[in-house]
Amino acid sequence: MRGAVIHAPGDVRFEERANPAIQAPTDAVIRMSATCVCGSDLWDYRGINPVNGPTPMGHEYVGIVEAVGSDVTTVKPGQFVIGSFFASDNTCEICRAGFQTSCVHREFVGAGGAQAEYLRVPLADGTLVATPDLPSDDLLPSLLAASDVLGTGWFGAVAADVKPGATVAVVGDGAVGLLAVLAARELGAERIIAMSRHESRQKLATHFGATDIVTERGDEGVARVKELTGGLGAQSVIEAVGTQQSMLQAIRSARPGGAVGYVGVAHDVTLPGEELFYSHVRLLGGPAPVRRFLPDLIDRIERGAIDPGRVFDLELPLDQVAEGYRAMDERRAIKTLLRP
Amino acid sequence: MRGAVIHAPGDVRFEERANPAIQAPTDAVIRMSATCVCGSDLWDYRGINPVNGPTPMGHEYVGIVEAVGSDVTTVKPGQFVIGSFFASDNTCEICRAGFQTSCVHREFVGAGGAQAEYLRVPLADGTLVATPDLPSDDLLPSLLAASDVLGTGWFGAVAADVKPGATVAVVGDGAVGLLAVLAARELGAERIIAMSRHESRQKLATHFGATDIVTERGDEGVARVKELTGGLGAQSVIEAVGTQQSMLQAIRSARPGGAVGYVGVAHDVTLPGEELFYSHVRLLGGPAPVRRFLPDLIDRIERGAIDPGRVFDLELPLDQVAEGYRAMDERRAIKTLLRP
Repeated sequence: MRGAVIHAPGDVRFEERANPAIQAPTDAVIRMSATCVCGSDLWDYRGINPVNGPTPMGHEYVGIVEAVGSDVTTVKPGQFVIGSFFASDNTCEICRAGFQTSCVHREFVGAGGAQAEYLRVPLADGTLVATPDLPSDDLLPSLLAASDVLGTGWFGAVAADVKPGATVAVVGDGAVGLLAVLAARELGAERIIAMSRHESRQKLATHFGATDIVTERGDEGVARVKELTGGLGAQSVIEAVGTQQSMLQAIRSARPGGAVGYVGVAHDVTLPGEELFYSHVRLLGGPAPVRRFLPDLIDRIERGAIDPGRVFDLELPLDQVAEGYRAMDERRAIKTLLRP
Repeated sequence: MRGAVIHAPGDVRFEERANPAIQAPTDAVIRMSATCVCGSDLWDYRGINPVNGPTPMGHEYVGIVEAVGSDVTTVKPGQFVIGSFFASDNTCEICRAGFQTSCVHREFVGAGGAQAEYLRVPLADGTLVATPDLPSDDLLPSLLAASDVLGTGWFGAVAADVKPGATVAVVGDGAVGLLAVLAARELGAERIIAMSRHESRQKLATHFGATDIVTERGDEGVARVKELTGGLGAQSVIEAVGTQQSMLQAIRSARPGGAVGYVGVAHDVTLPGEELFYSHVRLLGGPAPVRRFLPDLIDRIERGAIDPGRVFDLELPLDQVAEGYRAMDERRAIKTLLRP
């Protein structure tokens, strides 16, 4: 088969790779229906994360089950499935508490490289969720979004304790931040402040439910959120960037007794203990346990209640994956969808 | 009247001070029934916090209302009352969310110095809670504990999301840590691991409900907690020290999806963002909103369900307050109760 391999920063190639096969009786192999490029892939592409030799890329996927191991019971060949970037047994104590991305048996599905024609998914029973029927083609982008960015934005909103009637602020206007806006709306937020300075992203944020746009960043952004919330700050803040500045902006935008859900992968972040102590702000974040939310998200998508697939503003054939990276790196695209 | 004043590290004097008076129509003045020395007072006594000139000390109090301002409606002269170290209006949005120590009108009651014969309490309606009747003398220590250390340990347990059947670890064996053990038991924890290396404190922890004692600290303490919890860590961890080591020990003792409630006043703490991100541990802490819990705590004490007053292992007349500080500083006493 063919798939995307990064050789060095800025050097993503679509090339021949070995076909994945069942290695453990709990594995499945899927034929890719659609995959995409993640904001976190850009950390490698930009050389911020080291690239140690040729590495298969991609960890977001929807596809048709091609084969399953002998222990797999909940999905079967021919079914359309969605899974998360971490495989999980979905039965251990940590999974049962809803933190499947910290499953005691977790494996990074992306190690197999999802930007490819086929993908091996470990722990298929605990990882994959099948749709009731084969979905229509127009639902593919939204179902693919559920595999990571929607599930991650959703976890951000849940971790930030978004409740009906709440005032929410979202730091970050990438795909995850935009879908955190959608999640906040679905969870009943009354007011959603999106922090963005890009017009196309502001528009999408508004489409997803943002009621206010704040273009300022850092301390000025915080001051603007306070102004909009009677001087108190937001009840829930979702952080979807992962830098020192964005984390502090998120914490300082929350009111005492409020919560920050942080889902931007943290890079060189250190949090001031005293400030956090006196802030009375609750923190919860990390790699989103997308599996927890998948059945609900699939249901909302199939009912037409949400259209998270709109974050894909560029669609390319899989063999043009390199252009997909370039477009996102140059911020010409929010997120690139790839079809084999 | 007479009260305690710190002049320099190690120099606490019991001396003449001006009688407090009603200054605002929302004030009350109380005659002290009992007061005490807090672990946080030792930060001043030890010179870790700067002492800028003579400062009245003490912020824990129970007493009889002596006078009230013209706007006060919920307490009246002659009633026995308990309040928290921060005065709060108990009506603003932050108070209604249960974070009275961040009330938009908050004032530090301790500014008046509670280790004294009388104390002015601002915002009396929102701050003080009266007992149904004058309590018997043997309940005084427990009611006094509710003013800070019990309420703080309780908040730690609530912030750590202690639930029925949970496994809980408590870092810190001062009065707050010991009462966090009691709070965890009352909230239904099944297993409570107290981290302590002092025999008298271990005994009290066991009396309050600890099922396991861990004497190791730092990484060894973490390893021991993991050993006791099937390799996962505790579901809820209460941090009651406030140092870098104790915060990391708390975070690392919690399982993914678990929560840390931190109530030790943070001193020179910086939290590693990446580690926190991948830990999946929820953090909530800060100055305990004791007022939220006071009615419930008073009820439990009056019913005889809890005996938090046992943390006082030294009782002195108020005029011997200096000895009260010395005994705690030298760790001869866990906590000193003072009676005028």
